[in-house]
Amino acid sequence: MSLHDQDGGEPRPPHQLRTEEDEEERAYGVDPDFVDSVVDLLDANRVGEVRAVTDDLHAADVADLIEQIDPDHREALVEVLKPGFDAEVLSYLNPDLREEVVEAFEPKELAAAVAELETDDAVDLIQDLDEEQQREILENLPPETRALVQENLTYEEYTAGRLMQRDLVAVPQFWTVGRTIDYLRSGAEDLPETFYDLFVVDPMHRVIGTVPLSRILRARRSVAMAELQNDDFHTIPATMDQEEVANLFRQYALVSAPVVDAGDRLIGVITVDDVVHIIDEEAEDDFFKLGGVGDASIYRTVIDTARSRLKWLGLNLVTAFLAAGVISLFSATIEKVVALAVLMPIVASMGGNAGTQALTVAVRALATRELSSSNAPRVVGKEVLVGLFNGVVFATLVGLIAGFWFGPAIGVVIACAMTINLFVAGLFGVMIPLALDRFGVDPAVASGVFLTTVTDVVGFFAFLGLAAAFLL
Amino acid sequence: MSLHDQDGGEPRPPHQLRTEEDEEERAYGVDPDFVDSVVDLLDANRVGEVRAVTDDLHAADVADLIEQIDPDHREALVEVLKPGFDAEVLSYLNPDLREEVVEAFEPKELAAAVAELETDDAVDLIQDLDEEQQREILENLPPETRALVQENLTYEEYTAGRLMQRDLVAVPQFWTVGRTIDYLRSGAEDLPETFYDLFVVDPMHRVIGTVPLSRILRARRSVAMAELQNDDFHTIPATMDQEEVANLFRQYALVSAPVVDAGDRLIGVITVDDVVHIIDEEAEDDFFKLGGVGDASIYRTVIDTARSRLKWLGLNLVTAFLAAGVISLFSATIEKVVALAVLMPIVASMGGNAGTQALTVAVRALATRELSSSNAPRVVGKEVLVGLFNGVVFATLVGLIAGFWFGPAIGVVIACAMTINLFVAGLFGVMIPLALDRFGVDPAVASGVFLTTVTDVVGFFAFLGLAAAFLL
Repeated sequence: MSLHDQDGGEPRPPHQLRTEEDEEERAYGVDPDFVDSVVDLLDANRVGEVRAVTDDLHAADVADLIEQIDPDHREALVEVLKPGFDAEVLSYLNPDLREEVVEAFEPKELAAAVAELETDDAVDLIQDLDEEQQREILENLPPETRALVQENLTYEEYTAGRLMQRDLVAVPQFWTVGRTIDYLRSGAEDLPETFYDLFVVDPMHRVIGTVPLSRILRARRSVAMAELQNDDFHTIPATMDQEEVANLFRQYALVSAPVVDAGDRLIGVITVDDVVHIIDEEAEDDFFKLGGVGDASIYRTVIDTARSRLKWLGLNLVTAFLAAGVISLFSATIEKVVALAVLMPIVASMGGNAGTQALTVAVRALATRELSSSNAPRVVGKEVLVGLFNGVVFATLVGLIAGFWFGPAIGVVIACAMTINLFVAGLFGVMIPLALDRFGVDPAVASGVFLTTVTDVVGFFAFLGLAAAFLL
Repeated sequence: MSLHDQDGGEPRPPHQLRTEEDEEERAYGVDPDFVDSVVDLLDANRVGEVRAVTDDLHAADVADLIEQIDPDHREALVEVLKPGFDAEVLSYLNPDLREEVVEAFEPKELAAAVAELETDDAVDLIQDLDEEQQREILENLPPETRALVQENLTYEEYTAGRLMQRDLVAVPQFWTVGRTIDYLRSGAEDLPETFYDLFVVDPMHRVIGTVPLSRILRARRSVAMAELQNDDFHTIPATMDQEEVANLFRQYALVSAPVVDAGDRLIGVITVDDVVHIIDEEAEDDFFKLGGVGDASIYRTVIDTARSRLKWLGLNLVTAFLAAGVISLFSATIEKVVALAVLMPIVASMGGNAGTQALTVAVRALATRELSSSNAPRVVGKEVLVGLFNGVVFATLVGLIAGFWFGPAIGVVIACAMTINLFVAGLFGVMIPLALDRFGVDPAVASGVFLTTVTDVVGFFAFLGLAAAFLL
């Protein structure tokens, strides 16, 4: 069943080209077959047909198409899309590609397209451009839009002020449902395209309540806003960090929320679609940090990508040399019992993995605020016990295998080292993120290096040290 | 500035207890000080005051309080909250704690609370309970609610059918704005608490359009739904996987979407608040998988936690022994040149880290659908070049250090091994997730083990093999 069968007589959207198998997986958006068909049309210079198949696409799908097409055809595609270009496509585009696409436009063309956007989308787009491009676009915007965009840009990046939409509906408390609806019907100029809540404001333009639209639609014309308004609402200071904004929306399942300035006056609104975007970004951020990559995207060049990864690899190299230093202290022991060289990576590797498990849970719990000073001691205690428990389990297993392989003495030594290292891994796996968080350092970014250093050093030291003490 | 200053004369919410410093960080929800104050009240058996301070809390905040209070006081707190308990609290509660809290209630009490929930929240709550508890609650629900809940439960877990809210507003195409508003005002029984879109349906109850509420509020009474409706909408089959649902909402910035049965008939609606929850869950899932923990939460017991991590550690042990096996092939070489034992973990560790970087980006790009068969060859090619580039950089660096430490011959050998391993790491870092995805295996869960196996084995083999060939 296609998602678009209900569209009536409209032209079939591109994903109808899909095979049966693809359909199971993906029932919307553009797919590789569609991308290929556009490439073929571009190669044959059938510009009109390219325009025809892309015309009915949602802006998000056009953005996907631009992302997925190979770089050689990207320029040609953008050239075809230029007339009547929908600037919303740029909002959906990966930031790394956005710049490339923006450069294909004359500032005037781009300004005309940007002027059609809502303030928040325009700001999102403009903030990433270089100063020259920013200036050119701003100059070509209608004065009022320009003023709003510039005002949003005065707020720091990653704050509510940058995210907020300026068009909103605010009404006084004494207005009735009837008067409100009449006002909306009058087609007042600055009404947003879509909105979900009305804000009830006092004469100082401070928010005193919110009213979901569904509540207005269900009330009689004579009912006053004061009766409908929700008093249990949350205003967002324009300076609030976007991660905080996302947490607030998530915590109270909000769809839109009013943004206020330092004087508590209503100046904008943030809607859930922007928040979904932030939640994705923040989750991606933590995911990348755990994987040891900073800011990443598959659209970066080889050199940019390689350079962005050097830092983490460099840090890891320091750790690795530290571990090597520990091993070199026991060169004489290894020379006599070469089995130690064979087995020692097992102790370090198991410690690193067990520690990463504890660290992963702790970093996530800190990000979602489930881990706080109220329950930190309990969680640390738990992780230590988990480390000990798994330490004993794997110590027994590895001790037996190593014992059969290289003799019982080595089995006992590796079992003891394993228990120590998994205990330490559990302890530091949760203590390192907690400590970094306490010192205001993002635990996602730095915990991994510290942890590996600890588990490598402790692992090698415990194993080789015990061996030196008891085997020779 | 407090978020609640606008509340008028209502009692101050609990976060007013915060210190200035905390306030910067967190301007909503419960905080450790508030948790402590509740603990004190519980210890002093001042039940009335506990009720007073929790009464004005949002259900999400009550859930946070239950989560953050220590286990010893949790039972007492739930006991205090029981009279007039808001079942919505359970929806916000971590699933691991939910079961514990549910057990404190009599089935009848719980059913009464659940009956107040919207269908989707009731289903979300009931689906995780054991069969006995499910049956008892269902029996005590009002017949109509029970039928709807049971119908949702017939859909598989993690599908749209489980998520959907059954109460919705559907109107025929010929209805005018006036008639629609009159219908909503008449207080028709099954209207949802809050809604964002109306669905326009044909006589077969198939969706033919959606109308955002803001569009209705702005139109004159005489305008027909046919004129207002959005034709470019997406219906969600009830069998669609929830991850797919989240992607659809994200792709088109939806706030609500109609759910249809196999016959294309409208049977429910999914709203963005559920989707935010899923996006969080899916992101957490991938994060945990990358960190080598399956299903995790800080509320699990020590034994449950330890057991859930055994599998991953066990797999890692197999990899570690494989690597040990490779090393043991070169025991004789190590015995002669003990420096090899000192340096070999560096080669393996750098390969593992570089590979994890490539893997992290690939796993994420697969999850967000940025990586597809259209661009896979390009991305693989890029990662190989990145691996080679960083391989050469670190080979030079490590080669020089090792050369100074143990002599030039060893420096050259480790440089070659490093280049080989980082090249292999880049290649496999992106190929392994792509291959797993092609075979329908979740790349997030299994990629890591395969990758470490490859980089460990290749790293040790290249370094010790080259050493055996050229140093002796």
